[in-house]
Amino acid sequence: MSAGVSGAIAEGDRLPVLSRRVSQAVINAYAEASGDFNPIHTDPDYASKGPFGRTIAHGMMTLAYASDLMSEWAGEAWLSDSAIDVAFLGPVFAGDDVTVTGVVREIVQEDAGPTTVCELTCQVGDRTVMAGSARCRIGAS
Amino acid sequence: MSAGVSGAIAEGDRLPVLSRRVSQAVINAYAEASGDFNPIHTDPDYASKGPFGRTIAHGMMTLAYASDLMSEWAGEAWLSDSAIDVAFLGPVFAGDDVTVTGVVREIVQEDAGPTTVCELTCQVGDRTVMAGSARCRIGAS
Repeated sequence: MSAGVSGAIAEGDRLPVLSRRVSQAVINAYAEASGDFNPIHTDPDYASKGPFGRTIAHGMMTLAYASDLMSEWAGEAWLSDSAIDVAFLGPVFAGDDVTVTGVVREIVQEDAGPTTVCELTCQVGDRTVMAGSARCRIGAS
Repeated sequence: MSAGVSGAIAEGDRLPVLSRRVSQAVINAYAEASGDFNPIHTDPDYASKGPFGRTIAHGMMTLAYASDLMSEWAGEAWLSDSAIDVAFLGPVFAGDDVTVTGVVREIVQEDAGPTTVCELTCQVGDRTVMAGSARCRIGAS
Protein backbone atom coordinates (compact mmCIF):
# COMPACT_ATOMS: atom_id res chain seq x y z
CA MET A 1 0.00 0.00 0.00
CA SER A 2 2.87 2.39 0.68
CA ALA A 3 5.30 1.45 -2.06
CA GLY A 4 6.03 5.03 -3.01
CA VAL A 5 6.79 6.23 0.45
CA SER A 6 8.54 3.20 1.87
CA GLY A 7 10.85 3.04 -1.15
CA ALA A 8 13.18 5.76 -2.30
CA ILE A 9 11.28 8.66 -3.75
CA ALA A 10 12.63 11.65 -5.57
CA GLU A 11 11.49 14.94 -6.95
CA GLY A 12 9.98 14.42 -10.37
CA ASP A 13 8.58 10.97 -9.57
CA ARG A 14 5.18 10.44 -11.15
CA LEU A 15 2.37 8.99 -9.07
CA PRO A 16 0.22 6.23 -10.58
CA VAL A 17 -2.72 7.51 -12.63
CA LEU A 18 -6.21 7.06 -11.20
CA SER A 19 -9.38 7.24 -13.31
CA ARG A 20 -12.99 7.18 -12.22
CA ARG A 21 -16.22 7.39 -14.19
CA VAL A 22 -18.80 9.69 -12.63
CA SER A 23 -22.48 8.79 -12.94
CA GLN A 24 -25.62 10.27 -11.48
CA ALA A 25 -25.81 7.18 -9.25
CA VAL A 26 -22.32 7.90 -7.91
CA ILE A 27 -23.25 11.55 -7.34
CA ASN A 28 -26.40 10.47 -5.49
CA ALA A 29 -24.39 8.06 -3.33
CA TYR A 30 -21.93 10.83 -2.53
CA ALA A 31 -24.81 13.12 -1.52
CA GLU A 32 -26.07 10.44 0.87
CA ALA A 33 -22.62 9.87 2.34
CA SER A 34 -21.63 13.51 2.68
CA GLY A 35 -25.05 14.84 3.67
CA ASP A 36 -24.84 17.50 0.94
CA PHE A 37 -28.18 17.24 -0.85
CA ASN A 38 -27.96 20.50 -2.78
CA PRO A 39 -30.34 19.79 -5.69
CA ILE A 40 -27.80 21.17 -8.16
CA HIS A 41 -26.09 17.80 -7.63
CA THR A 42 -29.06 15.48 -7.40
CA ASP A 43 -32.13 16.96 -9.17
CA PRO A 44 -31.84 17.12 -12.97
CA ASP A 45 -34.98 19.28 -13.31
CA TYR A 46 -33.72 21.83 -10.79
CA ALA A 47 -30.20 21.77 -12.21
CA SER A 48 -31.44 22.26 -15.78
CA LYS A 49 -32.49 25.80 -14.81
CA GLY A 50 -29.18 26.58 -13.08
CA PRO A 51 -25.86 27.94 -14.32
CA PHE A 52 -24.56 24.60 -15.59
CA GLY A 53 -27.75 23.40 -17.30
CA ARG A 54 -27.46 19.99 -15.69
CA THR A 55 -26.37 18.34 -12.47
CA ILE A 56 -22.75 18.60 -11.40
CA ALA A 57 -20.71 16.37 -9.13
CA HIS A 58 -19.71 17.67 -5.73
CA GLY A 59 -16.25 19.25 -5.95
CA MET A 60 -15.31 17.30 -2.85
CA MET A 61 -16.00 14.09 -4.76
CA THR A 62 -13.32 15.01 -7.28
CA LEU A 63 -11.06 15.88 -4.38
CA ALA A 64 -11.84 12.49 -2.84
CA TYR A 65 -10.47 10.84 -5.97
CA ALA A 66 -7.27 12.85 -5.59
CA SER A 67 -7.12 11.75 -1.96
CA ASP A 68 -7.59 8.12 -3.03
CA LEU A 69 -4.56 8.46 -5.25
CA MET A 70 -2.51 9.90 -2.39
CA SER A 71 -3.75 7.15 -0.07
CA GLU A 72 -2.84 4.42 -2.54
CA TRP A 73 0.58 5.92 -3.14
CA ALA A 74 1.54 7.05 0.35
CA GLY A 75 -0.40 4.60 2.51
CA GLU A 76 -0.67 5.49 6.18
CA ALA A 77 1.54 8.56 5.75
CA TRP A 78 -1.43 10.12 3.97
CA LEU A 79 -3.79 9.11 6.77
CA SER A 80 -1.66 10.34 9.62
CA ASP A 81 -0.31 13.76 8.84
CA SER A 82 -1.31 15.45 5.63
CA ALA A 83 -2.60 18.60 4.02
CA ILE A 84 -4.24 19.54 0.76
CA ASP A 85 -4.46 22.83 -1.12
CA VAL A 86 -6.56 22.77 -4.28
CA ALA A 87 -8.65 24.98 -6.52
CA PHE A 88 -11.82 23.82 -8.25
CA LEU A 89 -11.58 25.05 -11.81
CA GLY A 90 -14.60 23.64 -13.59
CA PRO A 91 -17.63 21.41 -13.26
CA VAL A 92 -17.70 17.61 -13.47
CA PHE A 93 -20.83 16.13 -15.00
CA ALA A 94 -22.42 12.69 -14.89
CA GLY A 95 -20.78 10.58 -17.58
CA ASP A 96 -17.42 12.31 -17.25
CA ASP A 97 -14.25 10.29 -16.78
CA VAL A 98 -12.07 12.03 -14.20
CA THR A 99 -8.35 11.30 -14.40
CA VAL A 100 -6.07 12.20 -11.50
CA THR A 101 -2.34 12.57 -12.08
CA GLY A 102 0.40 13.60 -9.71
CA VAL A 103 4.09 14.29 -9.54
CA VAL A 104 6.47 14.72 -6.60
CA ARG A 105 7.24 18.41 -6.87
CA GLU A 106 9.41 18.83 -3.81
CA ILE A 107 10.75 17.06 -0.74
CA VAL A 108 11.05 19.51 2.12
CA GLN A 109 12.52 19.20 5.59
CA GLU A 110 9.99 20.10 8.27
CA ASP A 111 10.23 19.91 12.04
CA ALA A 112 8.31 16.64 12.02
CA GLY A 113 10.53 15.12 9.34
CA PRO A 114 10.90 14.97 5.57
CA THR A 115 7.70 15.84 3.75
CA THR A 116 6.67 15.30 0.14
CA VAL A 117 4.78 17.96 -1.77
CA CYS A 118 2.90 16.41 -4.68
CA GLU A 119 1.33 18.42 -7.47
CA LEU A 120 -2.09 17.00 -8.34
CA THR A 121 -4.24 17.56 -11.39
CA CYS A 122 -7.75 16.27 -12.13
CA GLN A 123 -8.85 16.36 -15.74
CA VAL A 124 -11.87 15.48 -17.82
CA GLY A 125 -10.37 14.99 -21.25
CA ASP A 126 -8.22 18.06 -21.86
CA ARG A 127 -10.15 20.15 -19.36
CA THR A 128 -8.57 20.67 -15.93
CA VAL A 129 -11.30 20.56 -13.27
CA MET A 130 -9.11 20.67 -10.17
CA ALA A 131 -5.47 21.45 -9.49
CA GLY A 132 -3.32 21.93 -6.46
CA SER A 133 -0.97 20.15 -4.12
CA ALA A 134 -0.91 17.59 -1.35
CA ARG A 135 1.65 17.26 1.45
CA CYS A 136 2.42 14.28 3.58
CA ARG A 137 5.28 13.16 5.74
CA ILE A 138 7.57 10.44 4.43
CA GLY A 139 7.77 7.45 6.69
CA ALA A 140 4.92 8.50 9.00
CA SER A 141 3.10 5.52 10.41
CA MET B 1 -29.14 29.28 0.07
CA SER B 2 -26.75 32.19 -0.45
CA ALA B 3 -27.77 34.49 2.36
CA GLY B 4 -24.20 35.15 3.44
CA VAL B 5 -22.89 36.08 0.05
CA SER B 6 -25.90 37.86 -1.39
CA GLY B 7 -26.12 40.07 1.69
CA ALA B 8 -23.41 42.35 3.03
CA ILE B 9 -20.55 40.40 4.48
CA ALA B 10 -17.61 41.67 6.45
CA GLU B 11 -14.35 40.48 7.89
CA GLY B 12 -15.01 38.85 11.24
CA ASP B 13 -18.44 37.50 10.29
CA ARG B 14 -19.03 34.06 11.74
CA LEU B 15 -20.44 31.32 9.53
CA PRO B 16 -23.25 29.15 10.86
CA VAL B 17 -22.08 26.15 12.86
CA LEU B 18 -22.49 22.69 11.30
CA SER B 19 -22.41 19.46 13.31
CA ARG B 20 -22.45 15.89 12.09
CA ARG B 21 -22.31 12.60 13.96
CA VAL B 22 -20.00 10.05 12.39
CA SER B 23 -20.93 6.37 12.53
CA GLN B 24 -19.43 3.25 11.01
CA ALA B 25 -22.45 3.18 8.68
CA VAL B 26 -21.66 6.70 7.48
CA ILE B 27 -18.00 5.77 6.99
CA ASN B 28 -19.04 2.70 5.00
CA ALA B 29 -21.37 4.81 2.85
CA TYR B 30 -18.57 7.27 2.23
CA ALA B 31 -16.27 4.41 1.18
CA GLU B 32 -18.88 3.28 -1.33
CA ALA B 33 -19.37 6.77 -2.71
CA SER B 34 -15.72 7.73 -2.89
CA GLY B 35 -14.38 4.36 -3.96
CA ASP B 36 -11.81 4.44 -1.13
CA PHE B 37 -12.15 1.04 0.52
CA ASN B 38 -8.94 1.15 2.55
CA PRO B 39 -9.77 -1.31 5.37
CA ILE B 40 -8.45 1.13 7.96
CA HIS B 41 -11.79 2.87 7.39
CA THR B 42 -14.12 -0.06 6.98
CA ASP B 43 -12.72 -3.19 8.69
CA PRO B 44 -12.68 -3.04 12.50
CA ASP B 45 -10.55 -6.20 12.80
CA TYR B 46 -7.91 -4.89 10.41
CA ALA B 47 -7.98 -1.42 11.94
CA SER B 48 -7.63 -2.77 15.48
CA LYS B 49 -4.07 -3.83 14.59
CA GLY B 50 -3.21 -0.47 13.02
CA PRO B 51 -1.86 2.80 14.40
CA PHE B 52 -5.22 4.08 15.62
CA GLY B 53 -6.51 0.84 17.17
CA ARG B 54 -9.87 1.21 15.45
CA THR B 55 -11.41 2.42 12.22
CA ILE B 56 -11.08 6.07 11.31
CA ALA B 57 -13.21 8.22 9.04
CA HIS B 58 -11.80 9.32 5.71
CA GLY B 59 -10.20 12.76 6.10
CA MET B 60 -12.05 13.82 2.98
CA MET B 61 -15.32 13.08 4.76
CA THR B 62 -14.47 15.67 7.40
CA LEU B 63 -13.48 18.03 4.61
CA ALA B 64 -16.82 17.32 2.93
CA TYR B 65 -18.57 18.60 6.05
CA ALA B 66 -16.53 21.80 5.85
CA SER B 67 -17.51 22.07 2.19
CA ASP B 68 -21.18 21.59 3.12
CA LEU B 69 -20.89 24.55 5.45
CA MET B 70 -19.35 26.68 2.71
CA SER B 71 -22.02 25.54 0.25
CA GLU B 72 -24.83 26.38 2.65
CA TRP B 73 -23.34 29.76 3.43
CA ALA B 74 -22.07 30.84 0.01
CA GLY B 75 -24.46 29.01 -2.31
CA GLU B 76 -23.45 28.85 -5.95
CA ALA B 77 -20.39 31.02 -5.35
CA TRP B 78 -18.91 27.98 -3.62
CA LEU B 79 -19.82 25.71 -6.52
CA SER B 80 -18.48 27.94 -9.27
CA ASP B 81 -15.08 29.22 -8.31
CA SER B 82 -13.51 28.09 -5.08
CA ALA B 83 -10.42 26.72 -3.40
CA ILE B 84 -9.59 24.98 -0.17
CA ASP B 85 -6.37 24.66 1.81
CA VAL B 86 -6.55 22.46 4.89
CA ALA B 87 -4.44 20.27 7.13
CA PHE B 88 -5.67 17.06 8.71
CA LEU B 89 -4.57 17.17 12.31
CA GLY B 90 -6.05 14.10 13.94
CA PRO B 91 -8.30 11.10 13.43
CA VAL B 92 -12.10 11.06 13.52
CA PHE B 93 -13.66 7.88 14.88
CA ALA B 94 -17.10 6.33 14.60
CA GLY B 95 -19.29 7.88 17.29
CA ASP B 96 -17.52 11.25 17.13
CA ASP B 97 -19.50 14.44 16.70
CA VAL B 98 -17.67 16.71 14.26
CA THR B 99 -18.37 20.42 14.56
CA VAL B 100 -17.37 22.79 11.77
CA THR B 101 -16.98 26.49 12.49
CA GLY B 102 -15.86 29.30 10.25
CA VAL B 103 -15.14 33.00 10.21
CA VAL B 104 -14.60 35.46 7.37
CA ARG B 105 -10.92 36.20 7.79
CA GLU B 106 -10.38 38.47 4.82
CA ILE B 107 -12.03 39.93 1.75
CA VAL B 108 -9.49 40.31 -1.03
CA GLN B 109 -9.67 41.89 -4.45
CA GLU B 110 -8.70 39.45 -7.19
CA ASP B 111 -8.77 39.83 -10.96
CA ALA B 112 -12.04 37.91 -11.10
CA GLY B 113 -13.64 40.05 -8.40
CA PRO B 114 -13.91 40.30 -4.63
CA THR B 115 -13.13 37.03 -2.89
CA THR B 116 -13.78 35.88 0.67
CA VAL B 117 -11.21 33.92 2.61
CA CYS B 118 -12.87 31.95 5.40
CA GLU B 119 -10.96 30.28 8.20
CA LEU B 120 -12.43 26.84 8.90
CA THR B 121 -11.99 24.58 11.90
CA CYS B 122 -13.33 21.05 12.47
CA GLN B 123 -13.36 19.83 16.05
CA VAL B 124 -14.31 16.74 18.00
CA GLY B 125 -14.91 18.13 21.46
CA ASP B 126 -11.86 20.25 22.24
CA ARG B 127 -9.70 18.38 19.74
CA THR B 128 -9.06 20.07 16.39
CA VAL B 129 -9.10 17.43 13.65
CA MET B 130 -8.87 19.73 10.62
CA ALA B 131 -8.05 23.38 10.09
CA GLY B 132 -7.46 25.64 7.15
CA SER B 133 -9.13 28.07 4.83
CA ALA B 134 -11.59 28.24 1.98
CA ARG B 135 -11.82 30.90 -0.73
CA CYS B 136 -14.73 31.77 -2.95
CA ARG B 137 -15.76 34.71 -5.03
CA ILE B 138 -18.48 36.99 -3.74
CA GLY B 139 -21.38 37.32 -6.12
CA ALA B 140 -20.30 34.52 -8.46
CA SER B 141 -23.27 32.83 -10.09
